[in-house]
Amino acid sequence: MRPYKELTKEELLSLKEKLELEYKGYQDKGLKLDMSRGKPSAEQLDLSMEMMDVLHSGMDLKGEQGVDCRNYGILDGIKEAKELLAAIIEVPIDNIIIYGNSSLNVMFDTVSRAMTHGVMGGTPWCRLDHVKFLCPSPGYDRHFAITEYFGIEMITVPMLPEGPDMDMVERLVSADPDIKGIWCVPKYSNPQGLTYSDETVRRFARLKPAAKDFRIFWDNAYSVHHLYDDKQDQLIEILAECEKAGNPDMVYKFSSTSKISFPGSGVAAIATSPNNMEEIKKALTIQTIGHDKLNQLRHVKFYKDIDGIREHMKKHAAIMRPKFEAVLEILEKELGELEIGSWIKPRGGYFISFDSMDGCAKAIVQKAKEAGVVMTGAGATYPYGKDPHDSNIRIAPSFPTLEELKTAAQLFTLCVKLASVEKLLEEK
Amino acid sequence: MRPYKELTKEELLSLKEKLELEYKGYQDKGLKLDMSRGKPSAEQLDLSMEMMDVLHSGMDLKGEQGVDCRNYGILDGIKEAKELLAAIIEVPIDNIIIYGNSSLNVMFDTVSRAMTHGVMGGTPWCRLDHVKFLCPSPGYDRHFAITEYFGIEMITVPMLPEGPDMDMVERLVSADPDIKGIWCVPKYSNPQGLTYSDETVRRFARLKPAAKDFRIFWDNAYSVHHLYDDKQDQLIEILAECEKAGNPDMVYKFSSTSKISFPGSGVAAIATSPNNMEEIKKALTIQTIGHDKLNQLRHVKFYKDIDGIREHMKKHAAIMRPKFEAVLEILEKELGELEIGSWIKPRGGYFISFDSMDGCAKAIVQKAKEAGVVMTGAGATYPYGKDPHDSNIRIAPSFPTLEELKTAAQLFTLCVKLASVEKLLEEK
Repeated sequence: MRPYKELTKEELLSLKEKLELEYKGYQDKGLKLDMSRGKPSAEQLDLSMEMMDVLHSGMDLKGEQGVDCRNYGILDGIKEAKELLAAIIEVPIDNIIIYGNSSLNVMFDTVSRAMTHGVMGGTPWCRLDHVKFLCPSPGYDRHFAITEYFGIEMITVPMLPEGPDMDMVERLVSADPDIKGIWCVPKYSNPQGLTYSDETVRRFARLKPAAKDFRIFWDNAYSVHHLYDDKQDQLIEILAECEKAGNPDMVYKFSSTSKISFPGSGVAAIATSPNNMEEIKKALTIQTIGHDKLNQLRHVKFYKDIDGIREHMKKHAAIMRPKFEAVLEILEKELGELEIGSWIKPRGGYFISFDSMDGCAKAIVQKAKEAGVVMTGAGATYPYGKDPHDSNIRIAPSFPTLEELKTAAQLFTLCVKLASVEKLLEEK
Repeated sequence: MRPYKELTKEELLSLKEKLELEYKGYQDKGLKLDMSRGKPSAEQLDLSMEMMDVLHSGMDLKGEQGVDCRNYGILDGIKEAKELLAAIIEVPIDNIIIYGNSSLNVMFDTVSRAMTHGVMGGTPWCRLDHVKFLCPSPGYDRHFAITEYFGIEMITVPMLPEGPDMDMVERLVSADPDIKGIWCVPKYSNPQGLTYSDETVRRFARLKPAAKDFRIFWDNAYSVHHLYDDKQDQLIEILAECEKAGNPDMVYKFSSTSKISFPGSGVAAIATSPNNMEEIKKALTIQTIGHDKLNQLRHVKFYKDIDGIREHMKKHAAIMRPKFEAVLEILEKELGELEIGSWIKPRGGYFISFDSMDGCAKAIVQKAKEAGVVMTGAGATYPYGKDPHDSNIRIAPSFPTLEELKTAAQLFTLCVKLASVEKLLEEK
């Protein structure tokens, strides 16, 4: 098949007719599939079912340090949970605070606290006329939703193959004291599956922000979420890099077991400098009586240590890999030579990022929806839900079964073709 | 024994000598007891141990509505958890949102949201020059800590036997638009164990606040925490009262199972009007991916329904009652005729509130501490930790064993005597 751009109007019209017939066939199937969110499949959740058994009524539910995990006490997490999460986050256990079930909630709280109380003696952000965040995009919609909720102005920074455009980040951060933060998913990024290069991380660590209270929001959500045993991305540990660069307090690292154990019933954590931790704990003392220590204990008893986590993640990968490969294969087979879209082959994470021809993403997602396949809303990967090129679509292959996924991916490529043909015809 | 006030200086001096000797005896024992916080005892926690077994690996972890409780989804709680908590909170299930593990955290978030986003279209409190809360006192130190943390001015309202001084509450609330809230523990109040009278609740519901965004923070922490089967306090349901009075949006009710199941691993909830719920959910969507549905399911499978809760609370009462009675008996026996202190006999809750002679509370708590018994800090039951009379002390009998508690209570009365004698001697 020739690239669509080379087709004549007549060829496009006849192609359109053929594609519409095919599309009608899908509509008649009454599909009801969901590729919208990074939700683990039931099969993946089954992997952790024995976690339901590790605590039982005949047991002493004391932690290593003798603390009764059933009762009040211990604000920042039991020691063994700190050890486990610190190993996942690759920081010393003294740099970690264990939270509740959602790292998103930790990020929300972190921004909220900066709004009401400022960061380390700085003016509370709610008292400032302008607060801005840099948003490498395409990025994670829920990050952007938090900053939008707090009225923080979002500035889009393009994602390059090595990570965010660091020339732009450096220039903006060092010039504008209103810029207080940047959202990052540094490994197997959402949605592109890219991992920041060593040089990118080092440039982050060496930033010279105009704002003293500038913080990097480093959401390392997919640190152990590899798809392959042999091809794994490596990410430099930012907390140590920041310390080396004389910026020890510049980063908050977030992580959780949501996509290791159970989404909603996992354990989240923040890792940061002693100064930041002191500030966080001051607020935490007021905010809560402590997080769920029994669930912390449950996770430790089940995974034991980082090796346990790694073994477990291989099982996730064995379920995820064929799904990613199936989608990529269908994209390649159906769209490979048409020059109407491009995509990145990730080695981990939860998403495949697809870029259509400019101005087609909304139409593609709409068409998929009308044939029963829900995708993440077009635009969602950009601040304010506005993709300037209307081209980026996030594909989440995890939740459907492999068979469902193949059908959904096939339909998706059909929608891409159809929307592209329509776009090209408009332009003729 | 005659009231201390009637003793001559010589009698007081000789009494002091005798008490000091007795006190020295306690110091030599090297006690290490804690009557400071409302912590359930290990024996109470054992009551819920079978909750560890109700979910297991061989099980389908779907909720009633078919939702997989292991996965993302359901922001406001699974239906069966709503039913259980709604029954505890005595509201329809449509008025409830299930949260995470800590109702204190829900209260914190509620104040924090009002700070950054205002209440129902009102100016965000962080943009106002003055925000004030009424604080019926003695009250709960952690409530006061939240309002202090957010820089909210706290105004002490005296607690009367029927609840807060409603003349004062009505007068202040209707006159001052800066008054945005009031902290209430309406049943078996912390620390006095008092329950608001029907008239008090109705006067709350009929308040005419000058501030449209005034809210009652109704922390019904001890709604089912009776000490007796036959003598139980009844509290009118405020949400319905507010609706009847034409103030449907005026109250947030908070509750949790922290002192039913496991502190730190319980389930918290807020109950309020549909308007308030809509506003809360708008924030919740941004703040979190949802709360721990497996823990919600665990609670429902274990307690089943409100009858299960009631039966369970009888077991708690059987452990708590002897402890309360032991303390009250020792207070009565040791201090009954001395006119150096008064206390309230509660029918539920977690505390006994003790009032010493003016100016003695700090000294009493200090003396207890120096003999190895930790009490809640004197002053903690008042805003800013400042008890104007330095007289209120919160006794928390739950955590120590009965034997330990008797020793601690005995020592406590000794400290009361000693501090009172010293005070009276100062005045001679």
